[in-house]
Amino acid sequence: MSNQLNGIAASNGVAIAKAYMLVDPDLSFDKKVIENEDHEVQRLHDSFATSKDELEVIKQHAVKSLGEEEAAVFEAHITILADPELISGIEKKINEEHVNAESALKEVTDSYIAMFEAMTDNTYMQERAGDVRDVTKRVLSHLLGVKLPSPALINTQSIVVAHDLTPSDTAQLDRQFVQGFITDIGGRTSHSAIMSRTLEIPAVVGTENATTTINDGDTVIVDGIHGKAIVNPSDEEIDQYQQMAAQFEREQAEWGELKDSSTKSADGKHFDIAANIGTPDDLAAVLDNGGEAVGLFRSEFLYMNSAELPTEDEQFEAYKKVIAGMGDKQVVIRTMDIGGDKHLPYLPLPEEMNPFLGYRAIRISLDRQEIFRTQLRALLRASNYGKLAIMFPMIATVNEFKQARAIYDEEKQKMVNAGQRVADNIQVGMMMEIPAAVMIADKLAKYADFFSIGTNDLIQYTFAADRGNEHVSYLYQPYNPSLLRLIKRVIDTAHQEGKWAGMCGEMAGDQVAVPLLMGMGLDEFSMSATSMLQTRSLMKKLDTTRLQKLVDQALDAESNEEVIELVKQLDIK
Amino acid sequence: MSNQLNGIAASNGVAIAKAYMLVDPDLSFDKKVIENEDHEVQRLHDSFATSKDELEVIKQHAVKSLGEEEAAVFEAHITILADPELISGIEKKINEEHVNAESALKEVTDSYIAMFEAMTDNTYMQERAGDVRDVTKRVLSHLLGVKLPSPALINTQSIVVAHDLTPSDTAQLDRQFVQGFITDIGGRTSHSAIMSRTLEIPAVVGTENATTTINDGDTVIVDGIHGKAIVNPSDEEIDQYQQMAAQFEREQAEWGELKDSSTKSADGKHFDIAANIGTPDDLAAVLDNGGEAVGLFRSEFLYMNSAELPTEDEQFEAYKKVIAGMGDKQVVIRTMDIGGDKHLPYLPLPEEMNPFLGYRAIRISLDRQEIFRTQLRALLRASNYGKLAIMFPMIATVNEFKQARAIYDEEKQKMVNAGQRVADNIQVGMMMEIPAAVMIADKLAKYADFFSIGTNDLIQYTFAADRGNEHVSYLYQPYNPSLLRLIKRVIDTAHQEGKWAGMCGEMAGDQVAVPLLMGMGLDEFSMSATSMLQTRSLMKKLDTTRLQKLVDQALDAESNEEVIELVKQLDIK
Repeated sequence: MSNQLNGIAASNGVAIAKAYMLVDPDLSFDKKVIENEDHEVQRLHDSFATSKDELEVIKQHAVKSLGEEEAAVFEAHITILADPELISGIEKKINEEHVNAESALKEVTDSYIAMFEAMTDNTYMQERAGDVRDVTKRVLSHLLGVKLPSPALINTQSIVVAHDLTPSDTAQLDRQFVQGFITDIGGRTSHSAIMSRTLEIPAVVGTENATTTINDGDTVIVDGIHGKAIVNPSDEEIDQYQQMAAQFEREQAEWGELKDSSTKSADGKHFDIAANIGTPDDLAAVLDNGGEAVGLFRSEFLYMNSAELPTEDEQFEAYKKVIAGMGDKQVVIRTMDIGGDKHLPYLPLPEEMNPFLGYRAIRISLDRQEIFRTQLRALLRASNYGKLAIMFPMIATVNEFKQARAIYDEEKQKMVNAGQRVADNIQVGMMMEIPAAVMIADKLAKYADFFSIGTNDLIQYTFAADRGNEHVSYLYQPYNPSLLRLIKRVIDTAHQEGKWAGMCGEMAGDQVAVPLLMGMGLDEFSMSATSMLQTRSLMKKLDTTRLQKLVDQALDAESNEEVIELVKQLDIK
Repeated sequence: MSNQLNGIAASNGVAIAKAYMLVDPDLSFDKKVIENEDHEVQRLHDSFATSKDELEVIKQHAVKSLGEEEAAVFEAHITILADPELISGIEKKINEEHVNAESALKEVTDSYIAMFEAMTDNTYMQERAGDVRDVTKRVLSHLLGVKLPSPALINTQSIVVAHDLTPSDTAQLDRQFVQGFITDIGGRTSHSAIMSRTLEIPAVVGTENATTTINDGDTVIVDGIHGKAIVNPSDEEIDQYQQMAAQFEREQAEWGELKDSSTKSADGKHFDIAANIGTPDDLAAVLDNGGEAVGLFRSEFLYMNSAELPTEDEQFEAYKKVIAGMGDKQVVIRTMDIGGDKHLPYLPLPEEMNPFLGYRAIRISLDRQEIFRTQLRALLRASNYGKLAIMFPMIATVNEFKQARAIYDEEKQKMVNAGQRVADNIQVGMMMEIPAAVMIADKLAKYADFFSIGTNDLIQYTFAADRGNEHVSYLYQPYNPSLLRLIKRVIDTAHQEGKWAGMCGEMAGDQVAVPLLMGMGLDEFSMSATSMLQTRSLMKKLDTTRLQKLVDQALDAESNEEVIELVKQLDIK
């Protein structure tokens, strides 16, 4: 009989395939007295050899998907397997103490681990303890004949099932084989959910018990449209979902036809549909999906994929590539947003009890001005190649914006004085992602050229709930009137000063939120490239004159759920 | 020449005394080859004996100030000093290797520490490693003839100077000897600042470099009124500050006369001045300082000073003591606010990346209802002894409040059905400390009987800045118009529904904020008992009809600093 799991629809689409459980197996065993020592030693050697082969595959895969540096850990594991002292120590224990290979292995590696961990003033040796632990797990899995899964080892059409997916897991997923994924935890803005949209893999997250309900090899349907997973479906269910998949493909084709049209509501009002991107390589998808602008170019990749601070020239090249690539379409580049959960190996930041409420983004830029000024000069130089807008992240007060803008003006003036060319149409705006800034948006609108609402952070601060924390995930309430009122305030105050307001959080591409945001007069909607055409298609069907009433009702509602009901009652086309 | 340090005025008053540096001393030494082994062994024995004497004093002191359980760690230290194997091991090293006592001690204890730490599956033994480390420090200090300070060892009039003070430090401060304190870090709402007000010790926090500027034994003036410290003052300065101290005493006497009056503004408008308390023992100070109510009774002490969940009876006794003690004056009890930075040994909470944005307060209560229901029953039983109000912490949405209130109604109904007596005048309200709740306060006011603004948390969420994080302490901006607008919204929405609004954060007793809050019509001001009379005195001098203009100007200002200037221009009496 089939079994249905409900979760959160993280990425559109439908997929049917066998489950690949990315879950740690049970590696427990009993210590046994054995008689045939040679046989145990042979089993040990075989398991070392198979582990080495497996690690070679994983390493090769990791080099490709993660880079040499990240892959080095697997090289370290292979080196441990080749250590003659380790293997002879285990052999000796088998021969002298007549114990099975599992327990000889475990006892010897445990003593290594204890020795490494006792070296408390040597971080390098302490990390080796973790390596030995990982290698022991892998060898044990072969001795016990159970599978120790790795995303790199998937080589048939599969649905990946995991408690959660780490950035390293998702980087290793091979789009050729992985048809979809299902996780126990996470919400629409969790790392795994965002990656599923970028990779265009149907995904359901937050099912709570996928890993305990599904078995390796079960046939699974991932319904990323409704946030459901069907385990061991009946023939009728397979049939029904194949039809749904076909329908989804037809819709995608229909959306594809909108690629070259501009975005207009049923009553002819224009909106800008823009893309959020992370690197210059993402540009192709923006153009393929008919983006009218880049609404958010996160500049962090320059800082994170590097062993030291990126130079002005390196930054200039990256910004220029995107700005020139978009032609006469606007590119909004956000200045460095590190800190929080993003750390740089070469820029030590303080240990913080609550990093999301800590030293990050503009707070670092205003404090470490040399880093900020380098970035601003690179941006100013790149401005000559197209239509640039710059925005500052995590502005909380008017003084912070004025300070940041003054530094920008200073760098610009210096360049002009030195005879360097700088575009004269650069807009300088800010992210709206902190409640304090929203509450004083009327004052900020006098100084900023535009606002871009960052809903991912704004929601977590407004509700005081870490968006990565599953225990408070029920407080991710994008439609709660409390949040909608803050959003309306941003849009209204911008318009009062003749400025524009955009949104670059996940919410801008959310099909429930879009009618509300259109009704409030949001000017620019910036989202994952893969959501743009679907959103354009939805907007075409909506009449903004009729959305006013919806907005009024939503702002006067009591709860997130009430607002969802209101939007559901909308008669779309 | 004297030297001035600027910091944050944490607790009113002026004190002059010698500095006691609560700072770890330099315990470095050289390994030496020695010739007179007997002399080294004698030094070792002497240092062990002095250390033991010192630890006895500290232990006695800790039993009194912290309780038997917390003092047990010092008993463990004494036991280590008495270990014959430890001392004979060190003696042996001195005699056989001809090294000085310092290095023999260090080498032997290091091997103990490494051995304990290698027992990774034994938390108890791992903690012993920390004990050996502490004991080694103490013995070393005596071998080297330097002072290892402890708050328990202070036995002359002193000003304590520290980087920061931990809860265990402040608990051991003897009010008889400690005249004031100065710290490098912290703000007005840091633990050490709050404790200084409770203990009524003048204090300046956040000076940044007190520990590097002041030397042990320097004469120091703590000016807790203006947030300054003077190191090695001139005779004129001592004179000037003695006058200031005398003036402060006169003012205190003047405030004391207001003890039995009710709180009225110059134009006769009444406000309630209430106290924030942590345990029933704080009640005496509330009555001594003329409190008109208890505006916040934190119930956490019941959960934190215990080895298991407090029973209904234990809670009932504590609540009854406070409610009955206040007679016909109202007592607002806040339900359990654990999580965040408050953990319970017997209630394991999830490890969180951002605990302030995590599973805490009402979020736990709604999830672990058995704990919540026990507390509500204890409160309902205690309601018969006076005038009780209950409030829920960390409410973010209307649904949360409705759920919490429904559970309350259910427990009340059950008790009534069982024939138990329950007061009929209990008010049920909520803390306003999350921006989402403020934005939907108009809806919440329909369900809640009152609001109490918790500014400590509201400020940190509104500005997305952890109030304990020194790197973002500049964002603690209680007068920023963005925050004032949120506060005004809470007060106005409460009044529109005929409800009252109070404040129980540090801001309610802040002399700059009070005129603004009076102008906005805040009904109840709840603060440290020691700030109440000063605030009543200030209110008496202010005419609310004239404060309207101040409020309008402040709400329309751009920054925290501008608002401070506006209040400064007020003509007070």
